[in-house]
Amino acid sequence: MTDRSFHVYDTTLRDGAQQEGIALSVADKLTIALLLDELGVGFIEGGWPGAVPKDTEFFQRAAKELDLRNAELAAFGATRKPGTRASEDPQVRALLDSEAPVVTLVAKSDLRHAERALRTTGEENLGMIADTVAFLRREGRRVFVDAEHFFDGFAFDAAYSRAAVLTAFEAGAEVVALCDTNGGMLPDQVRDVVLDVRAAAGPDAVLGMHAHNDSGCAVANTLAAVDAGCVHVQGTVNGYGERTGNADLLAVVANLELKRGRPVLARAADGDGGLPELTRIAHAISEITNISPFARQPYVGASAFAHKAGLHASAIKVDPDLYQHTDPALVGNDMRMLVSEMAGRASIELKGRQLGHELAARPEVLSRVTSRVKDAEANGYTFEAADASFELLLVEEMDGARPAYFRVESWRTIVERNGGRGTPAVAEATVKLHAGGERIVATAEGNGPVNALDQALRSALLRVYPELESFELIDFKVRILDQTHGTDAVTRVLIETSDGHTSWSTVGVGPNLIEASWEALTDSAIWGLRHAGVPAR
Amino acid sequence: MTDRSFHVYDTTLRDGAQQEGIALSVADKLTIALLLDELGVGFIEGGWPGAVPKDTEFFQRAAKELDLRNAELAAFGATRKPGTRASEDPQVRALLDSEAPVVTLVAKSDLRHAERALRTTGEENLGMIADTVAFLRREGRRVFVDAEHFFDGFAFDAAYSRAAVLTAFEAGAEVVALCDTNGGMLPDQVRDVVLDVRAAAGPDAVLGMHAHNDSGCAVANTLAAVDAGCVHVQGTVNGYGERTGNADLLAVVANLELKRGRPVLARAADGDGGLPELTRIAHAISEITNISPFARQPYVGASAFAHKAGLHASAIKVDPDLYQHTDPALVGNDMRMLVSEMAGRASIELKGRQLGHELAARPEVLSRVTSRVKDAEANGYTFEAADASFELLLVEEMDGARPAYFRVESWRTIVERNGGRGTPAVAEATVKLHAGGERIVATAEGNGPVNALDQALRSALLRVYPELESFELIDFKVRILDQTHGTDAVTRVLIETSDGHTSWSTVGVGPNLIEASWEALTDSAIWGLRHAGVPAR
Repeated sequence: MTDRSFHVYDTTLRDGAQQEGIALSVADKLTIALLLDELGVGFIEGGWPGAVPKDTEFFQRAAKELDLRNAELAAFGATRKPGTRASEDPQVRALLDSEAPVVTLVAKSDLRHAERALRTTGEENLGMIADTVAFLRREGRRVFVDAEHFFDGFAFDAAYSRAAVLTAFEAGAEVVALCDTNGGMLPDQVRDVVLDVRAAAGPDAVLGMHAHNDSGCAVANTLAAVDAGCVHVQGTVNGYGERTGNADLLAVVANLELKRGRPVLARAADGDGGLPELTRIAHAISEITNISPFARQPYVGASAFAHKAGLHASAIKVDPDLYQHTDPALVGNDMRMLVSEMAGRASIELKGRQLGHELAARPEVLSRVTSRVKDAEANGYTFEAADASFELLLVEEMDGARPAYFRVESWRTIVERNGGRGTPAVAEATVKLHAGGERIVATAEGNGPVNALDQALRSALLRVYPELESFELIDFKVRILDQTHGTDAVTRVLIETSDGHTSWSTVGVGPNLIEASWEALTDSAIWGLRHAGVPAR
Repeated sequence: MTDRSFHVYDTTLRDGAQQEGIALSVADKLTIALLLDELGVGFIEGGWPGAVPKDTEFFQRAAKELDLRNAELAAFGATRKPGTRASEDPQVRALLDSEAPVVTLVAKSDLRHAERALRTTGEENLGMIADTVAFLRREGRRVFVDAEHFFDGFAFDAAYSRAAVLTAFEAGAEVVALCDTNGGMLPDQVRDVVLDVRAAAGPDAVLGMHAHNDSGCAVANTLAAVDAGCVHVQGTVNGYGERTGNADLLAVVANLELKRGRPVLARAADGDGGLPELTRIAHAISEITNISPFARQPYVGASAFAHKAGLHASAIKVDPDLYQHTDPALVGNDMRMLVSEMAGRASIELKGRQLGHELAARPEVLSRVTSRVKDAEANGYTFEAADASFELLLVEEMDGARPAYFRVESWRTIVERNGGRGTPAVAEATVKLHAGGERIVATAEGNGPVNALDQALRSALLRVYPELESFELIDFKVRILDQTHGTDAVTRVLIETSDGHTSWSTVGVGPNLIEASWEALTDSAIWGLRHAGVPAR
């Protein structure tokens, strides 16, 4: 049974988004929140409403659109300004307006930061903590406090840092998370400080840990804090965050569940979610952040359970547990290296069934599909985020061919700019294809080459397939995949299309971005027509 | 003074080379060995002579060519085969032939591995350890023993694992390194086991630690072992290694020197080498392994000391030590301010100073730059990963115009495919521009439209600016930025260019991917020429 009194608190959307190179849209944040909920975290810190306009919008949309099965949303903000009242501080009011059930307040707990960064006194800083916590409690919110720069502050003036924590609890804070904001602590220091604070705050005080990885010990520091009595852990998916990143929440929860025997992730009533989804969710989120996954990442990395074939290969086959620290299936990873959810026959069979195709009775089709998926993934395809392309591949192997809605003769796209900096470029495309017994040539303009190709393809097909009218390209993602020594990079394009009722995703891969996009565009049209029950004309 | 009785033992060339995607030539290994020696490690494990032909050659060439100022070379190998004599085992003889002053023997210390992988008895395995160690000692070598799978073995049968260690010491081993081969330990377990072994082996026994990062705790596990009495640490540069990698030796030594006050790296008589070289050497080695550096790597990563939050920029300027766990100069790294969404005047001023432009005395320029950066970021630009574009913007505001190396009249790119699925597409581009007093028209092909434009621009400019010859596009990132409902998406392109010595990044944004790429390509050429001191011709 999951221990609900233990908090798994994710801050990917707030502190993780501080990472260089991460820029999340509101839609990205909503999608990530759903994935985190599926994983089974207890709290999702969504951002800083009032300070960051996009975060204000996130909470507005989340209140209406986000259907979480387990996690609670937390809004992050600061204690009130010096010399004001919490109730009159617009930044504090914005936290209320966010309608998040939990508010996490960052509070200075290092005297030097209070004096030098806030330019106030230590005493007024304590007053700010007390006043802001008490105000938000009166307004009916659960209040967590992030004691910023706690460990460095404790080393400088332990009494003051302790007082900041006690003030927060006295004012009604439910949790105080001790933050190693600069990330330089080592596990033994963390343990000693947490034990000291526990002794001061009492055994019932709910203490948390917020670690950064500057000394390479964020995961170990978090575990040391838990061993010393913390029952609330903060971290980010894939360890995203400023500088060296935050504690990788995935490694933290995997260690707690698998090495400490402490179930901390919530599971759905049907047993879904939790640790077996760890690898899939880690990779899905990296698709959204567009940060390449780190192959050596503990538990979920593509290499995490990979063994160089050699001396011990047969021994590994007989006694896998002698060569791995844990069963990779427990975290949804794979000893065989192909990290994809799709790689094994069993999961492909399952996926086929989900899409309405029973493959159990057709083992030869299942074998061919498995082998094509493996080949395709080795070449840069990913089907995790492209169900429609996967289904077309499946249909092709089941029926012997993909649906023949049209036959392409040629296509061309031209982008040109006739002028210097500032002159807009223009894009056009021409498509020649055969459909409905005719040869059709269509040309269209677009705001870029892919858009022009999309318009030209659509224009060519519309007279034969008017059903295409409702299809709209709603998302387009590009990823350059590094290849190993000496080979060229390849480009992967993911396209999402909507017909107003449902949406579907297709993938294309090639040395050339336009070519990869064309593959995804045509797959999208074919899948959409097939799904609508349109016969090939 | 460096503690010479403490061993920093590097195994990048042996265990690190097990990483997927690393393939080192003998010349690569010799170069890396020199860099490791410069860093000041005590021991360099060069490979497994006799088992790996390239490693045999490495030791042959090292004996003749490698002039190490401090480090000793170690040859890695295994205990003799069951049922033979060490003196007659060709693999053991190859260790002698390597002429390495130190031999590190891997020995089974988990009873299950002795029985199931070696298919021998526990007793014979102990005999193999005793016999092989004693033989090599008689031949005048220093002998270290890697007790493989020690921690898992200890959990299964502590008495047997302890006996393996004691046998090695009794036979004359100078060091026994306890190996967490499967990498799943946590620091408290490591500490308890090391304390147990120390009690059994006596206070003078030299124990070492060899950690892998499967639980995300390799660095902390190594420190826990040192705290419990180990005086020999093994690891690899950048944490290279199989699966999740080995303990990152760089983070281990930085933590020992900076956080434990324990100087462990040797310095040259002139003070050269050691920790201040950490970042440079980490990056130099990643050039040789051709593994992209991990930006979030502790101490040496490009982001390790980068700050994003514009809010605190003014405070960081005054009190940098309140915002960093250690002075980046101590490890040869640099504090870097990221120009980000929250860009304030203070962070732009600081950024300008880092790039060598003093803006404090020119407040009107600072205002214009700040306002342009804010506008640009609102339109999708990001300068945190595009220093070169930021500097061009700065220079434009300081000098009134950007450097006028060339004037573009027009460009065009065409991508076409004449055939159905499977036919390759072809891309070409034409650029018309004015430079060096001429009008130049150049056309080039490429594997995609951006590559074709890059080739055509380069071809057009080369006759006027031969300096461009050395520039190479080394990374290309594309991101589609979702805009809010109802507006078109914009595309952001980041390009990294290298001239073989340094690399720089530029950004382009537009509704059209090709247009955005063109902007980043031309900025890259301009920045590179300006940086090389080339005058506009």
